[in-house]
Amino acid sequence: NTVKAARELAYVGKSARAGRLLEHALSLAPKHPEVLIHYGEYLEQHRKDVVQADKIYLRALAVSPANSRALRNRRRTQPLVDEMDSDFLSRIDAKRDDLARIPSSSAALRRIKKEAYFHHVYHTAGLEGNTMTLAQTRSILETKLSVGGKSIIEHNEILGLDAALKFINTTLVHRVGRIALHDILEIHRRVLGHVDPIEAGHLRTTQVYVSEHVPPPPTRLQVLMEEFISWLNSPQAQSLHPVKYAALAHYKLVFIHPFSDGNGRTARLLMNFLLMQAGYPPVIIRKQDRLLYYECLKTANEGDTRPFIRFIAHCTEKTLDVYLWAT
Amino acid sequence: NTVKAARELAYVGKSARAGRLLEHALSLAPKHPEVLIHYGEYLEQHRKDVVQADKIYLRALAVSPANSRALRNRRRTQPLVDEMDSDFLSRIDAKRDDLARIPSSSAALRRIKKEAYFHHVYHTAGLEGNTMTLAQTRSILETKLSVGGKSIIEHNEILGLDAALKFINTTLVHRVGRIALHDILEIHRRVLGHVDPIEAGHLRTTQVYVSEHVPPPPTRLQVLMEEFISWLNSPQAQSLHPVKYAALAHYKLVFIHPFSDGNGRTARLLMNFLLMQAGYPPVIIRKQDRLLYYECLKTANEGDTRPFIRFIAHCTEKTLDVYLWAT
Ligand SMILES: Nc1ncnc2c1ncn2[C@@H]1O[C@H](COP(=O)(O)OP(=O)(O)OP(=O)(O)O)[C@@H](O)[C@H]1O
Ligand SMILES: Nc1ncnc2c1ncn2[C@@H]1O[C@H](COP(=O)(O)OP(=O)(O)OP(=O)(O)O)[C@@H](O)[C@H]1O
Ligand SMILES: [Mg+2]
Ligand SMILES: [Mg+2]
Repeated sequence: NTVKAARELAYVGKSARAGRLLEHALSLAPKHPEVLIHYGEYLEQHRKDVVQADKIYLRALAVSPANSRALRNRRRTQPLVDEMDSDFLSRIDAKRDDLARIPSSSAALRRIKKEAYFHHVYHTAGLEGNTMTLAQTRSILETKLSVGGKSIIEHNEILGLDAALKFINTTLVHRVGRIALHDILEIHRRVLGHVDPIEAGHLRTTQVYVSEHVPPPPTRLQVLMEEFISWLNSPQAQSLHPVKYAALAHYKLVFIHPFSDGNGRTARLLMNFLLMQAGYPPVIIRKQDRLLYYECLKTANEGDTRPFIRFIAHCTEKTLDVYLWAT
Repeated sequence: NTVKAARELAYVGKSARAGRLLEHALSLAPKHPEVLIHYGEYLEQHRKDVVQADKIYLRALAVSPANSRALRNRRRTQPLVDEMDSDFLSRIDAKRDDLARIPSSSAALRRIKKEAYFHHVYHTAGLEGNTMTLAQTRSILETKLSVGGKSIIEHNEILGLDAALKFINTTLVHRVGRIALHDILEIHRRVLGHVDPIEAGHLRTTQVYVSEHVPPPPTRLQVLMEEFISWLNSPQAQSLHPVKYAALAHYKLVFIHPFSDGNGRTARLLMNFLLMQAGYPPVIIRKQDRLLYYECLKTANEGDTRPFIRFIAHCTEKTLDVYLWAT
């Protein structure tokens, strides 16, 4: 009935009220295909939000895969969304190419690279709850002296990210050929080594939980990681757009959650390793975007990885903009 | 001639001058058997220092193994020294037994154990040049917060010793059976892990130098460590007095110097592990005794391990005295 009322309201042009009614209906029946479909159509027609509508139809199809109306609607929205996504990635590629044209001897480029390095460590540590400020992060890396009153662990988290980044920049990035499980373990060994030298570099042996996500049991990790490595090295994965490839690599790794701790940091470093190999700068996920970041991972767990890929694409674009603006 | 003059002076009773002359001769010809023998006799007769004299005769015999006068002198001094050493160890054992009679429920005992733990970490870190005070060491272990302005490495050295001690106290001490190479590597992994998670727990792969001592090349480490482990588990080593056994284990390990860093700390922990298994408290080598400690290791390299064993025996006695005094 709410749906009916909403449709009528929409029909007579009161789209704001109609939207609110549908959202109310959706909160009562979040998996009801009819409600989902109507809400999607409302998003398309009145909000012109094809991306969101497509996501909603997909959700309806997850509940009711043969629903003809949902299928029909998706046939309309999916190509549009695909095109928008691909336009977005092309825009990013254009910026990457702009950046590539700046000579590596440029003083401004070297300055922003150095600056971005500290930002990178600061944000990726901060996502995990590290409370060091950007200035403190910088001071730790430049002086190796401690900041009074902060926990020693917080210092060691910074040192670990620095060690892992240096390892990637000096050892991994220039290597050609397959990525091995060993490489990922070596990244993790450095990320977590200073904090927990015993666990670092080893797959977990206990079950873990990540908010509502229950990662696979420890007994399956070896096999799942080998599958993941095969995927990383597969021609079809490597033919994906680099941003998509890197984002999916990140997602798949945190889905498996192979380590007792440091999975997020390792996944972000792996992602950036793949992006750097493709000529992108290391991408910063800002600590203030943490909620959105987690939300996108949640949506990926529900079957739709596109919002996470888009999120990473946005982070990539933002990072590129900073570089271009600074040089 | 200096020797002759010294002998004459000694004869007429001017022993102080005679001593100085002989020491001067010794500094000119430190390996001259005649000078050594005369100096030894001087030490015996005028300074009543049989221990030192025996050491000097031994040095003469290292140069000239068949020297009959040195052999005759040693036949006189060696049994005396052996007896003194063994009396000393008996005295230590009596103190250990006194300590063993204090019920483990004693509040005073628990207090001194806790106190000694911090001293232990403080001194063994301090020997390596760590500049944390006792109070700072304690604060780091109790709060895990950093001390402003000190290097992060110094914090991690403290954490490493704590981790290694906890590992020994909870895992190793209660285990029966053979000591394995793996155990020593696991101690080292914890000692150095927070500072250098990559090197920690692994035998070195490069040559190192320890003041005048040149440890064996990395290629021989595996074999030498296996020999060392066999020795540790051999009946003849285990039938030695525990203080002698533990001190020799320490010496043999730093002689091999199997790690790129942290050899001293690992050797002191191994020594204390062996002492604890034999009912002694962990022995503290105080940072103010560093020079003497190194000097004794140097003498051991020259073929006489007794001064080092005596040094450790003194440290053991001092540690026992502190415990007994506190309880
Ligand atoms: N719902 C989810 N499903 C899968 N992965 C998730 C989910 N929510 C968060 N994550 C990932 O798990 C990471 C946290 O796991 P973990 O604590 O092992 O990593 P970390 O490196 O210690 O933390 P952080 O990534 O926050 O620095 C997050 O960073 C994120 O990448
Ligand atoms: N002449 C010597 N021969 C053999 N070993 C020595 C000699 N002089 C010192 N040592 C040992 O070497 C140790 C120093 O080696 P290393 O730096 O690897 O150990 P560390 O644990 O880092 O230092 P420290 O033992 O001072 O804390 C000393 O502690 C001592 O035990
Ligand atoms: Mg974590
Ligand atoms: Mg050292």
